[in-house]
Amino acid sequence: MPRQIRAETTRHNIIAAAVDVFGHLGYGRASLNDIISGAGVTKGSLYFHFDSKEALARAVIDASVDQLRAELTNITSSRAPALEKFIHCCFVTAVLFREEALLRTGGRLLLEIGDFRGAEGESFQDWTGVVRAVVQAAVDQGDIDDGLDLDELTSGVTSALSGAFFASEALGGRTDVVGRLETVWRLLVRAAVPPAGQSYFQEFLSRETATARAGAVTPDADTPAG
Amino acid sequence: MPRQIRAETTRHNIIAAAVDVFGHLGYGRASLNDIISGAGVTKGSLYFHFDSKEALARAVIDASVDQLRAELTNITSSRAPALEKFIHCCFVTAVLFREEALLRTGGRLLLEIGDFRGAEGESFQDWTGVVRAVVQAAVDQGDIDDGLDLDELTSGVTSALSGAFFASEALGGRTDVVGRLETVWRLLVRAAVPPAGQSYFQEFLSRETATARAGAVTPDADTPAG
Repeated sequence: MPRQIRAETTRHNIIAAAVDVFGHLGYGRASLNDIISGAGVTKGSLYFHFDSKEALARAVIDASVDQLRAELTNITSSRAPALEKFIHCCFVTAVLFREEALLRTGGRLLLEIGDFRGAEGESFQDWTGVVRAVVQAAVDQGDIDDGLDLDELTSGVTSALSGAFFASEALGGRTDVVGRLETVWRLLVRAAVPPAGQSYFQEFLSRETATARAGAVTPDADTPAG
Repeated sequence: MPRQIRAETTRHNIIAAAVDVFGHLGYGRASLNDIISGAGVTKGSLYFHFDSKEALARAVIDASVDQLRAELTNITSSRAPALEKFIHCCFVTAVLFREEALLRTGGRLLLEIGDFRGAEGESFQDWTGVVRAVVQAAVDQGDIDDGLDLDELTSGVTSALSGAFFASEALGGRTDVVGRLETVWRLLVRAAVPPAGQSYFQEFLSRETATARAGAVTPDADTPAG
């Protein structure tokens, strides 16, 4: 194998072993020795790629954010209404957290590492701008009450939705993330969608929840519910 | 000093040093040596009280939960309406998280330690029952729409409110916890309070927010807002 490809393969194997070890033991209990033996590499080889346990954990967080972005691209680039895409993205993310070890471990490390950042310094903060733009688009499309303050709404929605993921991690080992997301979205729809859209969006939520429970979420928001 | 009092003093000093070290460095980076030197005790003395860094972190979590309970007792035992007491407890908790090192560090460790439990196995789960009882009382008192499903509402409210604390930790280093709590509560009030109570509870929130921002929250819910 050419040297660069070999290095990439090694790095990939180390990350895969790290996902396994961090995912099972958590950041505090995981040791680099476990990861070295899981990856089948030498200590020198691991240190060539990662300075420390922390650097490796941050690389796992970055890889999980990259995977999430890639999975959501089809949805965010579709022409469905903004609020439908936003809801759909949340449920797809919930299913990915439930089923994909990389995302599950990335999410866990984001909590455990304390500052909510990966190696590239990107943080949860960056998502606030994304949510704000989506909320603005939904207001423009008449799906969110235009009497609400945009910044307040962005802050409240971001907090409440992140709470569905955090509380699921804290209370249910993530198995109930879809159910928690449903109950939070039902309250958000009641709070923010104009009366004319209430029954449509509550039904949209029922359909998203049913699909996510069945585990058959596809990253495609072009098929409208209702 | 009698031996038992001396042991309690030592334990107290170790916990205080642990709050300081965990609070500044986080669970992953904190070392028992830093805590030993901060507490001015011997290694043997620390190990007499705590088996491991993890055991010590869990003791800090337990101490923070005990403090929170004690601070909230005056409110929960008052005769104010359930929804007002609930909102007031949230804002008092936010101020405590902002200002009290023990609570701040306990909250941080709860995230970092991964399973959201202290030494006594008590978890965040226990709070769901408390929230459910409060929501039921508020429904009975006419402050929450009785057409809502109690379990769904409990799940949604618990997730959304915990999100205000978690997102504040993740996004703003806790400085904006009061503002986040306000925006989440505004949405919850819009979603769940009957029309006749909307303006009263939105004003109640404005007053609670202003008091919490000023840092002058007292654990007393008997003085009604409005």
